[in-house]
Amino acid sequence: MTNSRSKLGEFDLIAKYFAPLAAGAPGAFGLKDDAATIALEPGQELVVTTDLLSAGIHFFPGDPPELIARKSLRVNLSDLAAKGAKPEGYLLSLALPHDIAADWISSFAEGLAEDQREFGVALFGGDTTATNGSVTISITAFGMLPSGSMTKRSGAKPGDIVFVTGTIGDAAKGLSLLGDQTKASYTATERALIRRYRLPEPRVAFGQKIRGVATAALDVSDGLVADVEHIADASRVRMTVGISMIPLSDHRRRTSGASESEIIAAATGGDDYEIAFAAPADKRAVIQKLAEETRTPVSEIGRVEVGEGVSLVGDDGSEIAILHKGYKHF
Amino acid sequence: MTNSRSKLGEFDLIAKYFAPLAAGAPGAFGLKDDAATIALEPGQELVVTTDLLSAGIHFFPGDPPELIARKSLRVNLSDLAAKGAKPEGYLLSLALPHDIAADWISSFAEGLAEDQREFGVALFGGDTTATNGSVTISITAFGMLPSGSMTKRSGAKPGDIVFVTGTIGDAAKGLSLLGDQTKASYTATERALIRRYRLPEPRVAFGQKIRGVATAALDVSDGLVADVEHIADASRVRMTVGISMIPLSDHRRRTSGASESEIIAAATGGDDYEIAFAAPADKRAVIQKLAEETRTPVSEIGRVEVGEGVSLVGDDGSEIAILHKGYKHF
Repeated sequence: MTNSRSKLGEFDLIAKYFAPLAAGAPGAFGLKDDAATIALEPGQELVVTTDLLSAGIHFFPGDPPELIARKSLRVNLSDLAAKGAKPEGYLLSLALPHDIAADWISSFAEGLAEDQREFGVALFGGDTTATNGSVTISITAFGMLPSGSMTKRSGAKPGDIVFVTGTIGDAAKGLSLLGDQTKASYTATERALIRRYRLPEPRVAFGQKIRGVATAALDVSDGLVADVEHIADASRVRMTVGISMIPLSDHRRRTSGASESEIIAAATGGDDYEIAFAAPADKRAVIQKLAEETRTPVSEIGRVEVGEGVSLVGDDGSEIAILHKGYKHF
Repeated sequence: MTNSRSKLGEFDLIAKYFAPLAAGAPGAFGLKDDAATIALEPGQELVVTTDLLSAGIHFFPGDPPELIARKSLRVNLSDLAAKGAKPEGYLLSLALPHDIAADWISSFAEGLAEDQREFGVALFGGDTTATNGSVTISITAFGMLPSGSMTKRSGAKPGDIVFVTGTIGDAAKGLSLLGDQTKASYTATERALIRRYRLPEPRVAFGQKIRGVATAALDVSDGLVADVEHIADASRVRMTVGISMIPLSDHRRRTSGASESEIIAAATGGDDYEIAFAAPADKRAVIQKLAEETRTPVSEIGRVEVGEGVSLVGDDGSEIAILHKGYKHF
């Protein structure tokens, strides 16, 4: 509603910081048009996903802008990875407070540039606008894969094994360390956990490799238990996860041990951006090979059964009651 | 960062209000997966555009939620229309304050449902999240057209005529009426202008018809003069717009007359969501026919010349100086 006139107008912003990010995408028209075009090779289809991140909810307002940018892009790339799609590009909408510093924007764009190189994607287009609230970032990411081959949530079958990549609970611990007002400084171990919160590692290569091998997959963002339950619900099966099979990092073990309550906290914390997936038991060797090829740690964590819902089970097979399964967004 | 637990969680919200909006899109998987798929017919390409709307900037926080929803969708459909694409669907990301009422969300979804029927589009997916700020809506819209046929900003040629659909300045007047604290009530005429601000009419049918006829086009959102200049810049031509050729509605004339300063205000006000386009002079008859077929008023407003920039000219051919050409976003 306000017709604000800062020194740096929208078009200057686009030209200076964002147009260079679109150089690799012919359909972006140098960000000088109203829309972008996306073409597909015959037999391919597009996979699209979108995530909105808001200061104070998804990141701390004072976080380094280049890490905010990279996390915003990576949480979207993580969705594409879990679905088995090859990432191609993204749209970026940015709502910025009137008093945002040019430095902030320039660092934000540098973070995007770095991850564009790392993941081989380009900026297709977007929108920049003012907001009376805090920084808000909306990214829509585009990937491609052979038509009909997307790894869905809904294909898990009784008898399948449940797997997860990487380690679980590092980001949640990093977030709790960031929020701990009593801490004056962090150890190297703690900084590593904080880094896992601020900069997830989407499993882009592995996700594409297990397309057609996994029967169902998603990326773990709400919490391992909650997300495994999403697969169970969509697949109309029951999934059990063994509490001692959940992979914790040495960093996390060193920081807070591996008691049952700590493992539950890890498995319900969220922000892991690992891939949880189901696959037939006879695919174990193939999965191990694909994991090695892409240098992706993979752990077997549970089983798919007839029934519904998800259970966390102890080593004696007894079900462990948990208060909440993951992060509630709203 | 807060792990808020309102009675209505994200998944309930999606299921209750948004999943029904995705019923028409098989690639949306009932909003029960992490991504949507989009397939293309051979020879077609995808056109994508995105706009972010923020309370207090793009709409008044107290505006009717169904109109906020419809405007958010329509400003995106307007971009697709200007580019000549057939709209197919959209992704919706919604950042909502913690204290938002369920009624607000339900009315918002009803507004989307109404416009989905009107424009033949479906919800492909999205994201809902909390925000510490005000309501923020990010929509990415998808359209299709034959590969390589998008109407760009960059094709206008010296000798072309400049056209615009509909009337200009109604929305800007509506906005200024809404902001006028001295008004206790509005006349029917004033309410019609306010409606034009709150509910733009994207020229979806006409935009597709003039694909291949227009040499360049965009939708007028920043202000007619500013947007015509965008075409001039992208096409590396000069465009002149005759001040007395700018189409004003009877509503606007009745409210504030048609003095030179009023026409300038109309032509620099923004939020019109009409299509400004250039076309060769020998296409006048074709354009008139397409306008009639789609019941779209079209006015000739100027000419394309060799040179650069945009000029507003009086009836005597003299250039009219203007202070600012349109809305600055940031």
